[in-house]
Amino acid sequence: MRYCPKCGHQVSMEIPEGDNRQRAVCPQCHHIDYDNPRLITGTIPLFDGKILLCKRNIEPRIGYWTLPAGFMENQETTSEGALRETVEECGSNAICKQAFSMISIPKINQIHLFYIAELPQPDFHATEESSEVALFALDDIPWEDLAFSSVEMTLRLFIEDHSKGSYGFHEDTIRINSIPR
Amino acid sequence: MRYCPKCGHQVSMEIPEGDNRQRAVCPQCHHIDYDNPRLITGTIPLFDGKILLCKRNIEPRIGYWTLPAGFMENQETTSEGALRETVEECGSNAICKQAFSMISIPKINQIHLFYIAELPQPDFHATEESSEVALFALDDIPWEDLAFSSVEMTLRLFIEDHSKGSYGFHEDTIRINSIPR
Repeated sequence: MRYCPKCGHQVSMEIPEGDNRQRAVCPQCHHIDYDNPRLITGTIPLFDGKILLCKRNIEPRIGYWTLPAGFMENQETTSEGALRETVEECGSNAICKQAFSMISIPKINQIHLFYIAELPQPDFHATEESSEVALFALDDIPWEDLAFSSVEMTLRLFIEDHSKGSYGFHEDTIRINSIPR
Repeated sequence: MRYCPKCGHQVSMEIPEGDNRQRAVCPQCHHIDYDNPRLITGTIPLFDGKILLCKRNIEPRIGYWTLPAGFMENQETTSEGALRETVEECGSNAICKQAFSMISIPKINQIHLFYIAELPQPDFHATEESSEVALFALDDIPWEDLAFSSVEMTLRLFIEDHSKGSYGFHEDTIRINSIPR
Protein backbone atom coordinates (compact mmCIF):
# COMPACT_ATOMS: atom_id res chain seq x y z
CA MET A 1 0.00 0.00 0.00
CA ARG A 2 1.39 3.37 -1.06
CA TYR A 3 -1.68 5.61 -0.92
CA CYS A 4 -4.41 6.09 1.67
CA PRO A 5 -7.61 4.34 0.51
CA LYS A 6 -9.68 6.99 2.34
CA CYS A 7 -8.10 10.28 1.21
CA GLY A 8 -5.54 9.38 -1.48
CA HIS A 9 -2.54 10.90 0.35
CA GLN A 10 0.74 8.98 0.39
CA VAL A 11 0.99 6.77 3.48
CA SER A 12 4.02 6.02 5.63
CA MET A 13 4.89 2.81 7.44
CA GLU A 14 4.99 3.36 11.18
CA ILE A 15 3.95 1.84 14.49
CA PRO A 16 0.79 3.63 15.64
CA GLU A 17 0.50 4.73 19.26
CA GLY A 18 -0.55 1.84 21.49
CA ASP A 19 0.32 -0.67 18.76
CA ASN A 20 3.43 -2.82 18.31
CA ARG A 21 3.43 -3.45 14.56
CA GLN A 22 4.20 -1.41 11.50
CA ARG A 23 1.06 -0.29 9.67
CA ALA A 24 0.40 1.94 6.71
CA VAL A 25 -0.62 5.21 8.37
CA CYS A 26 -1.96 8.29 6.60
CA PRO A 27 -0.33 11.54 7.80
CA GLN A 28 -3.23 13.56 6.35
CA CYS A 29 -6.43 11.84 7.56
CA HIS A 30 -4.79 9.55 10.17
CA HIS A 31 -6.36 6.42 8.72
CA ILE A 32 -4.53 3.26 9.82
CA ASP A 33 -4.60 0.33 7.45
CA TYR A 34 -4.73 -3.15 8.98
CA ASP A 35 -3.74 -6.02 6.74
CA ASN A 36 -4.85 -9.38 8.15
CA PRO A 37 -4.68 -13.06 7.16
CA ARG A 38 -7.31 -14.41 4.79
CA LEU A 39 -9.41 -17.52 5.03
CA ILE A 40 -9.63 -19.99 2.18
CA THR A 41 -12.65 -22.27 2.58
CA GLY A 42 -13.35 -25.46 0.69
CA THR A 43 -14.81 -28.93 0.78
CA ILE A 44 -13.90 -32.61 0.55
CA PRO A 45 -16.91 -33.54 -1.63
CA LEU A 46 -17.89 -37.20 -1.21
CA PHE A 47 -20.07 -39.38 -3.37
CA ASP A 48 -20.32 -43.14 -3.15
CA GLY A 49 -17.11 -43.36 -1.13
CA LYS A 50 -15.15 -41.34 -3.65
CA ILE A 51 -13.67 -37.85 -3.45
CA LEU A 52 -14.34 -35.20 -6.07
CA LEU A 53 -11.29 -33.33 -7.31
CA CYS A 54 -10.97 -30.46 -9.78
CA LYS A 55 -8.18 -29.99 -12.30
CA ARG A 56 -7.24 -26.32 -12.11
CA ASN A 57 -7.93 -24.29 -15.22
CA ILE A 58 -6.39 -21.11 -13.78
CA GLU A 59 -3.09 -20.10 -12.22
CA PRO A 60 -1.56 -20.80 -9.81
CA ARG A 61 -0.95 -24.52 -10.41
CA ILE A 62 -2.95 -24.78 -13.61
CA GLY A 63 -3.33 -28.43 -14.67
CA TYR A 64 -2.98 -29.82 -11.14
CA TRP A 65 -5.73 -31.40 -9.06
CA THR A 66 -7.30 -29.70 -6.06
CA LEU A 67 -10.22 -29.79 -3.69
CA PRO A 68 -12.72 -27.03 -4.49
CA ALA A 69 -11.77 -24.01 -2.35
CA GLY A 70 -11.24 -20.28 -2.52
CA PHE A 71 -11.19 -17.00 -0.64
CA MET A 72 -14.03 -16.57 1.80
CA GLU A 73 -16.13 -13.50 0.95
CA ASN A 74 -17.71 -10.86 3.15
CA GLN A 75 -21.27 -11.47 4.37
CA GLU A 76 -20.97 -15.25 4.42
CA THR A 77 -20.22 -17.93 7.00
CA THR A 78 -17.26 -20.29 6.67
CA SER A 79 -19.47 -23.16 5.48
CA GLU A 80 -21.38 -20.90 3.07
CA GLY A 81 -18.04 -19.89 1.59
CA ALA A 82 -16.96 -23.52 1.23
CA LEU A 83 -20.23 -24.47 -0.51
CA ARG A 84 -20.17 -21.43 -2.82
CA GLU A 85 -16.65 -22.32 -3.93
CA THR A 86 -17.78 -25.90 -4.57
CA VAL A 87 -20.52 -24.67 -6.88
CA GLU A 88 -18.17 -22.26 -8.64
CA GLU A 89 -15.39 -24.78 -9.23
CA CYS A 90 -17.32 -27.90 -10.16
CA GLY A 91 -21.03 -27.10 -10.32
CA SER A 92 -21.83 -29.31 -7.33
CA ASN A 93 -24.44 -28.57 -4.69
CA ALA A 94 -22.83 -30.19 -1.68
CA ILE A 95 -23.93 -30.41 1.95
CA CYS A 96 -21.40 -29.62 4.68
CA LYS A 97 -21.17 -32.39 7.28
CA GLN A 98 -18.39 -31.09 9.54
CA ALA A 99 -15.34 -28.84 9.65
CA PHE A 100 -12.38 -31.18 9.13
CA SER A 101 -9.04 -29.41 8.68
CA MET A 102 -7.77 -25.92 9.51
CA ILE A 103 -4.27 -25.25 8.25
CA SER A 104 -2.37 -22.06 8.96
CA ILE A 105 0.17 -20.99 6.33
CA PRO A 106 1.75 -17.97 8.04
CA LYS A 107 4.26 -17.32 5.26
CA ILE A 108 1.44 -16.30 2.92
CA ASN A 109 -1.00 -15.02 5.57
CA GLN A 110 -3.62 -17.64 4.82
CA ILE A 111 -5.72 -20.17 6.73
CA HIS A 112 -7.14 -23.06 4.72
CA LEU A 113 -10.34 -24.56 6.14
CA PHE A 114 -11.89 -27.70 4.65
CA TYR A 115 -15.23 -29.32 5.35
CA ILE A 116 -16.28 -32.88 4.80
CA ALA A 117 -19.26 -32.55 2.45
CA GLU A 118 -21.69 -34.90 0.79
CA LEU A 119 -22.90 -34.78 -2.77
CA PRO A 120 -26.54 -35.93 -2.79
CA GLN A 121 -26.16 -36.59 -6.52
CA PRO A 122 -23.07 -36.93 -8.70
CA ASP A 123 -23.77 -33.52 -10.21
CA PHE A 124 -20.51 -31.96 -11.34
CA HIS A 125 -18.97 -30.60 -14.49
CA ALA A 126 -16.01 -28.65 -15.83
CA THR A 127 -16.20 -24.91 -15.22
CA GLU A 128 -14.19 -21.82 -16.05
CA GLU A 129 -12.03 -22.60 -13.04
CA SER A 130 -11.72 -26.37 -13.60
CA SER A 131 -10.83 -28.00 -16.90
CA GLU A 132 -11.83 -31.41 -15.58
CA VAL A 133 -13.80 -32.67 -12.57
CA ALA A 134 -13.77 -36.28 -11.46
CA LEU A 135 -14.45 -38.67 -8.57
CA PHE A 136 -11.42 -40.54 -7.23
CA ALA A 137 -11.43 -43.68 -5.14
CA LEU A 138 -9.29 -43.28 -2.00
CA ASP A 139 -6.72 -45.62 -3.55
CA ASP A 140 -6.54 -43.54 -6.70
CA ILE A 141 -5.76 -40.03 -5.43
CA PRO A 142 -3.28 -38.44 -7.89
CA TRP A 143 -0.75 -37.63 -5.15
CA GLU A 144 1.95 -36.52 -7.57
CA ASP A 145 -0.35 -34.12 -9.34
CA LEU A 146 -1.99 -32.26 -6.45
CA ALA A 147 -2.00 -28.47 -6.65
CA PHE A 148 -1.36 -27.45 -3.04
CA SER A 149 0.25 -28.89 0.08
CA SER A 150 -2.82 -28.01 2.18
CA VAL A 151 -4.90 -30.20 -0.15
CA GLU A 152 -2.43 -33.06 0.17
CA MET A 153 -2.37 -32.70 3.97
CA THR A 154 -6.17 -32.64 4.13
CA LEU A 155 -6.55 -35.71 1.91
CA ARG A 156 -3.97 -37.66 3.95
CA LEU A 157 -5.76 -36.78 7.19
CA PHE A 158 -9.09 -37.74 5.66
CA ILE A 159 -7.88 -41.14 4.53
CA GLU A 160 -6.29 -41.75 7.94
CA ASP A 161 -9.53 -40.91 9.73
CA HIS A 162 -11.54 -42.91 7.21
CA SER A 163 -9.49 -46.01 8.00
CA LYS A 164 -10.24 -45.44 11.71
CA GLY A 165 -13.95 -45.08 11.00
CA SER A 166 -14.32 -41.66 12.64
CA TYR A 167 -13.52 -38.14 11.52
CA GLY A 168 -12.02 -35.54 13.84
CA PHE A 169 -11.15 -31.88 13.51
CA HIS A 170 -7.51 -31.34 12.60
CA GLU A 171 -5.38 -28.29 12.97
CA ASP A 172 -1.94 -27.95 11.51
CA THR A 173 0.62 -25.50 10.15
CA ILE A 174 2.48 -25.46 6.87
CA ARG A 175 5.84 -23.69 7.02
CA ILE A 176 6.99 -23.03 3.51
CA ASN A 177 9.74 -21.11 1.80
CA SER A 178 8.16 -21.10 -1.62
CA ILE A 179 4.61 -20.95 -2.88
CA PRO A 180 2.57 -22.60 -4.15
CA ARG A 181 3.06 -25.99 -2.49
CA MET B 1 -12.30 2.63 -0.12
CA ARG B 2 -12.25 5.75 -2.31
CA TYR B 3 -8.68 5.81 -3.59
CA CYS B 4 -6.42 3.15 -5.08
CA PRO B 5 -3.85 2.02 -2.48
CA LYS B 6 -1.36 1.33 -5.27
CA CYS B 7 -1.51 4.49 -7.40
CA GLY B 8 -3.75 6.94 -5.50
CA HIS B 9 -6.32 7.36 -8.31
CA GLN B 10 -10.01 7.42 -7.41
CA VAL B 11 -11.51 3.92 -7.62
CA SER B 12 -14.93 2.86 -8.88
CA MET B 13 -17.14 0.04 -7.66
CA GLU B 14 -17.67 -2.53 -10.39
CA ILE B 15 -17.77 -6.25 -11.07
CA PRO B 16 -14.43 -7.25 -12.60
CA GLU B 17 -14.42 -9.57 -15.61
CA GLY B 18 -14.80 -13.18 -14.55
CA ASP B 19 -16.00 -12.13 -11.09
CA ASN B 20 -19.51 -11.87 -9.69
CA ARG B 21 -19.10 -9.31 -6.92
CA GLN B 22 -18.60 -5.60 -6.77
CA ARG B 23 -15.01 -4.63 -5.97
CA ALA B 24 -13.14 -1.37 -5.77
CA VAL B 25 -11.38 -1.23 -9.15
CA CYS B 26 -8.78 1.34 -10.21
CA PRO B 27 -9.41 2.70 -13.73
CA GLN B 28 -5.77 3.90 -13.93
CA CYS B 29 -3.60 0.98 -12.79
CA HIS B 30 -6.35 -1.70 -12.89
CA HIS B 31 -5.70 -2.80 -9.30
CA ILE B 32 -8.65 -4.73 -7.86
CA ASP B 33 -9.18 -4.49 -4.12
CA TYR B 34 -10.50 -7.59 -2.36
CA ASP B 35 -12.01 -7.06 1.07
CA ASN B 36 -12.35 -10.32 3.00
CA PRO B 37 -13.58 -11.46 6.42
CA ARG B 38 -11.19 -11.24 9.36
CA LEU B 39 -10.35 -13.80 11.98
CA ILE B 40 -10.49 -13.00 15.67
CA THR B 41 -8.54 -15.55 17.71
CA GLY B 42 -8.65 -16.01 21.46
CA THR B 43 -8.49 -18.43 24.35
CA ILE B 44 -10.54 -19.91 27.16
CA PRO B 45 -7.69 -19.74 29.73
CA LEU B 46 -8.10 -22.34 32.49
CA PHE B 47 -6.44 -22.56 35.86
CA ASP B 48 -7.52 -24.83 38.68
CA GLY B 49 -10.92 -25.45 37.05
CA LYS B 50 -11.62 -21.74 36.71
CA ILE B 51 -11.84 -19.52 33.62
CA LEU B 52 -9.88 -16.31 33.28
CA LEU B 53 -11.86 -13.32 32.07
CA CYS B 54 -10.75 -9.77 31.29
CA LYS B 55 -12.74 -6.61 31.98
CA ARG B 56 -12.39 -4.48 28.87
CA ASN B 57 -10.55 -1.22 29.30
CA ILE B 58 -11.14 -0.11 25.69
CA GLU B 59 -14.11 0.34 23.39
CA PRO B 60 -16.20 -1.38 22.23
CA ARG B 61 -17.92 -2.70 25.35
CA ILE B 62 -15.61 -1.05 27.85
CA GLY B 63 -16.29 -2.30 31.40
CA TYR B 64 -17.70 -5.65 30.26
CA TRP B 65 -16.04 -9.05 30.68
CA THR B 66 -14.53 -10.99 27.82
CA LEU B 67 -12.26 -13.87 26.95
CA PRO B 68 -8.87 -12.63 25.72
CA ALA B 69 -9.10 -12.35 21.91
CA GLY B 70 -8.31 -10.05 19.03
CA PHE B 71 -7.55 -9.73 15.34
CA MET B 72 -5.17 -12.36 14.01
CA GLU B 73 -2.07 -10.76 12.50
CA ASN B 74 -0.09 -11.60 9.39
CA GLN B 75 2.78 -14.08 9.72
CA GLU B 76 1.21 -16.03 12.57
CA THR B 77 -0.83 -19.21 12.95
CA THR B 78 -4.30 -19.22 14.48
CA SER B 79 -3.02 -20.58 17.81
CA GLU B 80 -0.09 -18.15 17.86
CA GLY B 81 -2.58 -15.32 17.39
CA ALA B 82 -4.73 -16.62 20.24
CA LEU B 83 -1.75 -16.89 22.60
CA ARG B 84 -0.38 -13.45 21.64
CA GLU B 85 -3.75 -11.88 22.40
CA THR B 86 -3.81 -13.68 25.76
CA VAL B 87 -0.44 -12.16 26.68
CA GLU B 88 -1.53 -8.71 25.48
CA GLU B 89 -4.83 -8.66 27.30
CA CYS B 90 -3.95 -10.27 30.62
CA GLY B 91 -0.21 -10.97 30.73
CA SER B 92 -0.74 -14.73 30.77
CA ASN B 93 1.49 -17.26 29.03
CA ALA B 94 -1.07 -19.92 28.19
CA ILE B 95 -0.75 -23.22 26.32
CA CYS B 96 -3.30 -24.05 23.62
CA LYS B 97 -4.88 -27.48 24.13
CA GLN B 98 -7.41 -27.58 21.29
CA ALA B 99 -9.49 -25.44 18.97
CA PHE B 100 -12.93 -25.28 20.57
CA SER B 101 -15.34 -22.86 18.89
CA MET B 102 -15.47 -21.20 15.48
CA ILE B 103 -18.27 -18.69 15.14
CA SER B 104 -19.07 -16.88 11.91
CA ILE B 105 -20.62 -13.42 12.24
CA PRO B 106 -21.34 -12.60 8.59
CA LYS B 107 -22.95 -9.25 9.34
CA ILE B 108 -19.61 -7.84 10.47
CA ASN B 109 -17.37 -10.03 8.27
CA GLN B 110 -15.70 -11.76 11.22
CA ILE B 111 -14.95 -15.28 12.37
CA HIS B 112 -14.27 -15.76 16.07
CA LEU B 113 -12.06 -18.73 16.92
CA PHE B 114 -11.45 -19.78 20.52
CA TYR B 115 -8.99 -22.33 21.92
CA ILE B 116 -9.16 -24.15 25.21
CA ALA B 117 -5.89 -23.16 26.88
CA GLU B 118 -4.16 -23.95 30.14
CA LEU B 119 -2.37 -21.55 32.42
CA PRO B 120 0.61 -23.39 33.95
CA GLN B 121 0.68 -20.72 36.67
CA PRO B 122 -1.93 -18.17 37.73
CA ASP B 123 0.13 -15.40 36.12
CA PHE B 124 -2.17 -12.59 35.05
CA HIS B 125 -2.59 -8.91 35.63
CA ALA B 126 -4.44 -5.83 34.44
CA THR B 127 -3.10 -4.36 31.19
CA GLU B 128 -3.80 -1.37 28.96
CA GLU B 129 -6.57 -3.41 27.37
CA SER B 130 -8.03 -4.89 30.57
CA SER B 131 -8.83 -2.89 33.70
CA GLU B 132 -9.29 -6.08 35.71
CA VAL B 133 -8.41 -9.73 35.18
CA ALA B 134 -9.85 -12.52 37.31
CA LEU B 135 -10.52 -16.25 37.51
CA PHE B 136 -14.18 -17.27 37.63
CA ALA B 137 -15.61 -20.59 38.78
CA LEU B 138 -17.98 -22.06 36.19
CA ASP B 139 -20.89 -21.24 38.52
CA ASP B 140 -19.83 -17.62 38.79
CA ILE B 141 -19.56 -16.48 35.17
CA PRO B 142 -20.91 -12.89 35.00
CA TRP B 143 -23.43 -13.71 32.27
CA GLU B 144 -25.13 -10.34 32.43
CA ASP B 145 -21.89 -8.46 32.04
CA LEU B 146 -20.24 -10.27 29.12
CA ALA B 147 -18.91 -8.09 26.30
CA PHE B 148 -19.79 -10.13 23.21
CA SER B 149 -22.28 -12.77 22.15
CA SER B 150 -19.50 -14.97 20.72
CA VAL B 151 -17.92 -15.04 24.19
CA GLU B 152 -21.24 -15.97 25.79
CA MET B 153 -21.81 -18.71 23.19
CA THR B 154 -18.31 -20.09 23.68
CA LEU B 155 -18.63 -20.14 27.48
CA ARG B 156 -22.01 -21.89 27.31
CA LEU B 157 -20.62 -24.53 24.96
CA PHE B 158 -17.59 -24.98 27.21
CA ILE B 159 -19.68 -25.50 30.33
CA GLU B 160 -21.94 -27.93 28.44
CA ASP B 161 -18.95 -29.98 27.26
CA HIS B 162 -17.34 -29.77 30.69
CA SER B 163 -20.41 -31.34 32.25
CA LYS B 164 -20.17 -34.17 29.70
CA GLY B 165 -16.49 -34.67 30.47
CA SER B 166 -15.28 -34.25 26.89
CA TYR B 167 -14.64 -31.23 24.70
CA GLY B 168 -15.54 -31.13 21.02
CA PHE B 169 -15.04 -28.62 18.23
CA HIS B 170 -18.07 -26.41 17.75
CA GLU B 171 -19.08 -24.34 14.79
CA ASP B 172 -21.89 -21.86 14.84
CA THR B 173 -23.20 -18.63 13.33
CA ILE B 174 -24.37 -15.45 14.99
CA ARG B 175 -26.90 -13.49 12.94
CA ILE B 176 -27.16 -10.00 14.34
CA ASN B 177 -28.72 -6.73 13.40
CA SER B 178 -26.63 -4.60 15.68
CA ILE B 179 -23.11 -4.77 17.00
CA PRO B 180 -21.63 -5.37 19.43
CA ARG B 181 -23.69 -8.18 20.98
